[in-house]
Amino acid sequence: MADYTPPLRDIRFVLEHLAGLDDLAKLEPFGHADAASVFGVLAEFGRLMSEVWAPTNAVGDAEGSRHEGDEVRTPAGFREAYRHYVAGGWPAVPFDVDYQGGGFPWVVGIAMQEMLNSANMALAMAPLLTQGAIDAIAFHGDEAQKETFLRPMVTGAWSGTMNLTEPDAGSDVGALRTRAVRQDDGTYRITGQKVFITFGEHDLTEQIVHLVLARTPEAPPGTKGISCFIVPKYLVEEDGSLGDRNDVHVVSIEHKMGIRASPTCVLAFGERGDGGARGEGAVGYLIGEEHAGMRYMFTMMNNARLGVGVEGLGLAERAYQQAVAYASERVQGRAPGASPGESSTIIDHPDVRRMLLTMKAFTEAMRAMCYVQAAQIDVAKHHPDEAAATEARELVELLTPIVKSWCTDLAETVTSIGIQVHGGVGYVEETGAAQHYRDAKITQIYEGTNGIQAMDLVGRKLPLRGGAVVRDQISRMRATVAELGGGDPEGDGEGDLAVIGARLAEAVSTLEAATGWMFEHGVADPVEALSVATPYQRLFATTVGGWLMGRSALAARAALDGGSVDGSERSFFEAKVVTARFFAERLLPEVHGLVGPVMAGGRGLFALTPAQLAR
Amino acid sequence: MADYTPPLRDIRFVLEHLAGLDDLAKLEPFGHADAASVFGVLAEFGRLMSEVWAPTNAVGDAEGSRHEGDEVRTPAGFREAYRHYVAGGWPAVPFDVDYQGGGFPWVVGIAMQEMLNSANMALAMAPLLTQGAIDAIAFHGDEAQKETFLRPMVTGAWSGTMNLTEPDAGSDVGALRTRAVRQDDGTYRITGQKVFITFGEHDLTEQIVHLVLARTPEAPPGTKGISCFIVPKYLVEEDGSLGDRNDVHVVSIEHKMGIRASPTCVLAFGERGDGGARGEGAVGYLIGEEHAGMRYMFTMMNNARLGVGVEGLGLAERAYQQAVAYASERVQGRAPGASPGESSTIIDHPDVRRMLLTMKAFTEAMRAMCYVQAAQIDVAKHHPDEAAATEARELVELLTPIVKSWCTDLAETVTSIGIQVHGGVGYVEETGAAQHYRDAKITQIYEGTNGIQAMDLVGRKLPLRGGAVVRDQISRMRATVAELGGGDPEGDGEGDLAVIGARLAEAVSTLEAATGWMFEHGVADPVEALSVATPYQRLFATTVGGWLMGRSALAARAALDGGSVDGSERSFFEAKVVTARFFAERLLPEVHGLVGPVMAGGRGLFALTPAQLAR
Repeated sequence: MADYTPPLRDIRFVLEHLAGLDDLAKLEPFGHADAASVFGVLAEFGRLMSEVWAPTNAVGDAEGSRHEGDEVRTPAGFREAYRHYVAGGWPAVPFDVDYQGGGFPWVVGIAMQEMLNSANMALAMAPLLTQGAIDAIAFHGDEAQKETFLRPMVTGAWSGTMNLTEPDAGSDVGALRTRAVRQDDGTYRITGQKVFITFGEHDLTEQIVHLVLARTPEAPPGTKGISCFIVPKYLVEEDGSLGDRNDVHVVSIEHKMGIRASPTCVLAFGERGDGGARGEGAVGYLIGEEHAGMRYMFTMMNNARLGVGVEGLGLAERAYQQAVAYASERVQGRAPGASPGESSTIIDHPDVRRMLLTMKAFTEAMRAMCYVQAAQIDVAKHHPDEAAATEARELVELLTPIVKSWCTDLAETVTSIGIQVHGGVGYVEETGAAQHYRDAKITQIYEGTNGIQAMDLVGRKLPLRGGAVVRDQISRMRATVAELGGGDPEGDGEGDLAVIGARLAEAVSTLEAATGWMFEHGVADPVEALSVATPYQRLFATTVGGWLMGRSALAARAALDGGSVDGSERSFFEAKVVTARFFAERLLPEVHGLVGPVMAGGRGLFALTPAQLAR
Repeated sequence: MADYTPPLRDIRFVLEHLAGLDDLAKLEPFGHADAASVFGVLAEFGRLMSEVWAPTNAVGDAEGSRHEGDEVRTPAGFREAYRHYVAGGWPAVPFDVDYQGGGFPWVVGIAMQEMLNSANMALAMAPLLTQGAIDAIAFHGDEAQKETFLRPMVTGAWSGTMNLTEPDAGSDVGALRTRAVRQDDGTYRITGQKVFITFGEHDLTEQIVHLVLARTPEAPPGTKGISCFIVPKYLVEEDGSLGDRNDVHVVSIEHKMGIRASPTCVLAFGERGDGGARGEGAVGYLIGEEHAGMRYMFTMMNNARLGVGVEGLGLAERAYQQAVAYASERVQGRAPGASPGESSTIIDHPDVRRMLLTMKAFTEAMRAMCYVQAAQIDVAKHHPDEAAATEARELVELLTPIVKSWCTDLAETVTSIGIQVHGGVGYVEETGAAQHYRDAKITQIYEGTNGIQAMDLVGRKLPLRGGAVVRDQISRMRATVAELGGGDPEGDGEGDLAVIGARLAEAVSTLEAATGWMFEHGVADPVEALSVATPYQRLFATTVGGWLMGRSALAARAALDGGSVDGSERSFFEAKVVTARFFAERLLPEVHGLVGPVMAGGRGLFALTPAQLAR
């Protein structure tokens, strides 16, 4: 098990230079979010994460959560770690001051989420899911619901869950069958079973607020007939105290490859026949209007999918730190340039360097992408200028599938390399490198599999404003190429920025060609677009990553040229340029291997029968 | 847990059409290895694998092997499965008739290894390691050693191990410190500790024959001072019966991410102070000459590395079968073309098709690569014509790192997609998809990490015969392009073969450019070559995969054009063409994203200090 050091300088760099923290501080609700306050908060939070949360990660994986009767017990240290988190007031930081929130920008909350996930992703899922439930109630609940549920959830005193999935309704949420029957008093009775409910039962908080998608008796089929309900574990009295137990109970928890400490529950609603509603079902309270549940889910989706992308980022950062530490200590073989008979630390072997820089460059690109996305969420919500808010909203819509899929696919890649750096020792569980890899795999699956993300990108996002949203993004990237000087055929092309610009220009051209193909063929025949949605998504995402690394290099160069940077800062900014160039030269060119597969379209994809596919 | 169906038709196709089984049967020792005999053997063996071995796979993973005192107990069913394997005479099939072997070509043994690994990779490691020990003794042991040890190992009555690694000697074998002191009677006394010894202790056989690398007192440092010893668990009496216990004992076994049923042991030699040598150490018998141990290891390396590649193939095949079965049954969402309100099996969704075809195409390319490599090993060993044998030997040398690294990297990819096809259920251990993924990861690490393979490729293999060996391989691939008609600018380029040929031609050109760069820069500065060895290796391997899929398409087309194929065969051969085209259009183009990273060379790789890499 390795230590975790909050990468505060890297976080600050992205917040200041890429996510535009200064501009966010000028928005009305964020007046107090000046740089000093934000970095003070993050430094203090980072200490909690490294000192209290991070040591629970390996223990949690080894022990797992246990299901006993009606209860689920989290592993040793989890209750205390969570208690510290609540006692410090941390859960509230990015939420609305109207509900006891700290009123900080979302992007600050995302920086905290990164550290939560690096420290202990399995435990971090409790606040992550709570945040989803908070969003749903905050956006669509009535005042009484907000008064009753929101405040204790914002402080972390109560946790929340999202109940969408059923055994036959996974990616196809519209197929769900959980029933909700309206009572004369306006409440509902919920019956049915939900699966894959993260922290559906646990011992961290006294109360759990379940958000449940269900179908009223006369509801139309599919997603148009889904309503959304609040189903608390305990009914809440007038004075806010906890009353009768509600008829929602844990049936079992899953035995998973990773995030073993996070209890993934089967929950039964109204099956026990007990609780406050005397056996008629679990008591539920409708959020907003009937049959609008799916629409409400969509309003939370961007935040939730970004949150999963940040899980990927957090795991990648921790895996990277562990790999660098190991490579700096482990002595093996003789690196080029070492004297005969001398052994080297493996960090001096070229292929190990390549692995570490790949991990570093991907992780930094992921951080840039997640934070920029979060900042755009802030701008979209709070910018007084309608045009600016709309531009941000469009960018968030476009990039949501890209952030989610890319950061989680890369989490697999980076944690896999992390094991590889360790060699055989990495395959032994006690080292801890394997846990990151096992944990990472789920992020590619939940909150919409990465295949579903790709369908979203080509089916819903490319057509936004007649294709103009994607064209705007391509223009933004071209502008960065120009700033880098890479588009200048007269330049000597030897400087770092020029090389980064040249590689980025090539990638943007490749993306533009692939996008042109998608518009031409995908509009005429959606099967064509769906057949190549995944390679197209990857091509797009890697180009966006290259763009952000290009902006990172520009910002670092500007800081260096601005003077007044001390030696340590100079070294930091210089490393940013080196890392961006590494990305541009060695990782970004992947896009040129993807354009062919995109343009292959749907050809031959259904040429084989299922019988021909089987052995 | 899913069933396993031996892919006999696919195995036969590769043996007949790509590996040249008919030509092998013409070689002197293989006269009895006609197609009918071979496929009879494989069909019968496949039954044992699907009926007896495959059901033990999930059980073995859940239970793991257990270390108790001096013993290691394998999971339920393992002893019986192994007993059936030995009772059927299966271990001996590909070994020399002089030692009770079946005298079949190595490629037939490799087809059996594929099935062993699909059925239960953890258990398959027992025979795999035994095979390594057999090779060492067969190639370099004296007649008495062969008489004593080889026969019972060939039949599987005794197992073997390979003891190379020590805590401070992993990739750098030359750093090992285990001592071997010569006695007056010509035997040696071995003292030291070895780690990561697969099946170093177990309950499958009464005797375990350890092959141990150790250093004699006056030995020169590094790899030039290593000698190789036979250290049996029990000393062997004159009549071949087991005598005194030798002083080699299991200290502990590792707790690993995967292949949990395969005991990975720490072994202590001469630490207990008991055994036949009265506390002086473990009794060991020198193989060949002192200080030649590393050279002997090299003669076994090609077989061993191919064997690990075949592990990747076996896991990929099993993961693919499981994914196709699930996708054919799981109903979710509405696929394009389905009626409104109708739900589809997920195999009808374009992105799921893409995933399955990717798994299928990669798996078939891996099979082609492994079998062709094995057949070349047979030719190299047995062809009467020196030129033909040399050509085969050179190809084996060149392709060894490629087979090992590519098939194991792809095993990670294919098993990862296998989980993805299952969605959330794939992350739950009981499904079994996660086991394949966990098992696969080790194959990228042991028997030389894939980074070590890349160093071997650029450092040892590219320079073979002044670069002519790699140029010969490029010529072979160009010849296949010509056969496919893809190099013909006059062709309309619309037919399947022409498209495959065109994509292959592009890939070979890209490989040629990258190879030219390697020769130009890598000779001048080895750091340049080592810095990009991994992307170059991937580029090379993917092109070789595309070449073999091209040959597969040619063979299938020839079979179709040859007439006299019934409906089922027609469907099979047509699927081969479709799969090869899928590979050519959607997987092979990856190479175009790798040439840039190769030509980036060592630039900037050491621009950051370790301090700049750390957070």
